Amino acid sequence: MPLIRNIHETEMNTVQMEGVQGASMSVMIGRDDQAPHFAMRSFAVQPGGHTPKHQHDYEHEVYVVSGNAQVLLEGEQHELKAGDAVLVPANELHQFTVPESASEPFRFLCFVPIEQNCGGPVPGS
Amino acid sequence: MPLIRNIHETEMNTVQMEGVQGASMSVMIGRDDQAPHFAMRSFAVQPGGHTPKHQHDYEHEVYVVSGNAQVLLEGEQHELKAGDAVLVPANELHQFTVPESASEPFRFLCFVPIEQNCGGPVPGS
Repeated sequence: MPLIRNIHETEMNTVQMEGVQGASMSVMIGRDDQAPHFAMRSFAVQPGGHTPKHQHDYEHEVYVVSGNAQVLLEGEQHELKAGDAVLVPANELHQFTVPESASEPFRFLCFVPIEQNCGGPVPGS
Repeated sequence: MPLIRNIHETEMNTVQMEGVQGASMSVMIGRDDQAPHFAMRSFAVQPGGHTPKHQHDYEHEVYVVSGNAQVLLEGEQHELKAGDAVLVPANELHQFTVPESASEPFRFLCFVPIEQNCGGPVPGS
């Protein structure tokens, strides 16, 4: 059977990582699926939650599925909405933050390369 | 300025390729944006339209944004709906077909590696 999975029907796991609040994720297509070059991960961040403020030596390509959030990029906050595509370059400090007042979770896809530039698997790929 | 683009606010170009009908696309994040490993492309296929029935030596990772279609994979047709993630492995024959009766275009993201396995740029990356 081909790999066809729906993000709304796939179990999400709480992200256990320092600096993270109210976030869950699921690997939709990853190294366990023999994805050769990059992985698709689905994230949900609850109102008032955030991803870690961090940087790493590989890029993100992000697609906003639903909800609203702010992303820290190049030292400034930028508003995000459904349909937005975002490139987070390697080594760029970034964080996704969902306002307390948000009426729904912020859902996005985050793609990462399978291998880090310095070698070894990318976490969560 | 960071790269933040909305798929609903980005101009789509008609796909001029043998075997394609009623399809348009836009590169959301690609080699012109210094994407180092993979490209995000946005596609829309009109009711009654289809992508080419073809195969190539690199994979697709597809995410369905809206609408419905069928995908040919492993010799069979599979129904697709919003939120579906699909892995099209390298060298696998595939085609997306939108029924004439569809009430809206079929919109999806299709990710490809920047480089082909045998070297050289992936078309449309």
